[in-house]
Amino acid sequence: MKVFILYAHPEPNASFQGALLKKGVETLESEGHEVIVSDLYKMGFNPVASAEDFTTRRFPDRLQYDREQKFAVENNELPNDVKAELEKIFWCDLFIVQFPLYWFSTPAILKGWFDRVFVNSVVYGAGKRYETGGLKGRKAMVVTSCGAYSEMFEPDGMMGDINVALWHLHNGTLFYTGFEVLPPFVAYSPVFGGQDACDNYLDDYARRLTNIDTTTPMKFHPLSDFGADFKLKPEVTPTSAGHSR
Amino acid sequence: MKVFILYAHPEPNASFQGALLKKGVETLESEGHEVIVSDLYKMGFNPVASAEDFTTRRFPDRLQYDREQKFAVENNELPNDVKAELEKIFWCDLFIVQFPLYWFSTPAILKGWFDRVFVNSVVYGAGKRYETGGLKGRKAMVVTSCGAYSEMFEPDGMMGDINVALWHLHNGTLFYTGFEVLPPFVAYSPVFGGQDACDNYLDDYARRLTNIDTTTPMKFHPLSDFGADFKLKPEVTPTSAGHSR
Repeated sequence: MKVFILYAHPEPNASFQGALLKKGVETLESEGHEVIVSDLYKMGFNPVASAEDFTTRRFPDRLQYDREQKFAVENNELPNDVKAELEKIFWCDLFIVQFPLYWFSTPAILKGWFDRVFVNSVVYGAGKRYETGGLKGRKAMVVTSCGAYSEMFEPDGMMGDINVALWHLHNGTLFYTGFEVLPPFVAYSPVFGGQDACDNYLDDYARRLTNIDTTTPMKFHPLSDFGADFKLKPEVTPTSAGHSR
Repeated sequence: MKVFILYAHPEPNASFQGALLKKGVETLESEGHEVIVSDLYKMGFNPVASAEDFTTRRFPDRLQYDREQKFAVENNELPNDVKAELEKIFWCDLFIVQFPLYWFSTPAILKGWFDRVFVNSVVYGAGKRYETGGLKGRKAMVVTSCGAYSEMFEPDGMMGDINVALWHLHNGTLFYTGFEVLPPFVAYSPVFGGQDACDNYLDDYARRLTNIDTTTPMKFHPLSDFGADFKLKPEVTPTSAGHSR
């Protein structure tokens, strides 16, 4: 497999996240996979979607970011950093998104990677979404860590279901653009747990990656589960964190 | 009331979002409220939490962003832009977070505002969370727009429950730091709907703001609903988008 790891941590020598990244690369390579990493802080990646991303404009008077993305694609005028990241995402079979959890979500530098790189008309839009998304045929997995205990992120825990917290990424970003989404790897409170807890998480992560080919994706509803009214068909039982009746 | 509107849109003359911002300011001022706006794109706000935010470091060898935030507070060495935004948030009674929905979430420039401004030990941490959060006594409301139709963001809609999509903001960010969170104002597909649809949304928004004092906050579970095991007490029925059994 070709594996693309998108990584964001403000400390170049991050203790636990750095060890997790290293463990991931080593494990995947030892299994014979090819691995590339985009380290967003190291790259100084610009996360701000703005008019500066476009040289020629279809609508010069008023910026509509998604429509200018489409126009830039047609004219082969996407910014070079966006082009380079797009090549990596289309190259890969497995996309790993690794970051420390900030406010139930990604650090801004990583959020902006999606804002700028998940380009309209290529990755989504123009009829591309969910199983017709531009990145279909690929798998994705969120790898994160947080200060909370695992009990806190259970459905009846203080912070609610981790899969509700990550819905905007899992369903709204990755499944939406065509990925099969694997269950997230979440290290809960590794640092408070001490070296043993960290080591256990590193071992768990290596096992997850070793068995990645046979990991069952999370269940999200495909387009065919919805009627022309955009609602779940009456015969479909809601089975995702974001759906209910 | 003192109202702080945090606003992010990449187009300075944004058509619908700009009209919504103007309508918000005008309506609130005509009701006698004081209003300030942070326009993040106009300010060129830096959304990237990094080592550059700190002059003196408690742990010079390895950055732990949240612990350095706490240390910077103790030494009165927070960056000036963070200080200025903190003053606004502590000044206000009502915090409006306005943005176009990007990937079921905020544009990166706004995400990074939370990463940098919601400072450890002041806004959260050191025993501050949920009803003991640093920003308690204030109300917050998300104001957003998206290309989807409203049916799509219902619990049985194609994109799932809007309150699941916004959980990371509503519960994980705003309620977590002590706000009472008002129901979001979401304009669905205003642009595809044409001028009438936009005008209707602007009128709806003005009505929402006129009645803001009597709007019932969303129901999230306070700390007292959880036991020492961080789980909902047996007698409590889950009533939020993120909680279930």
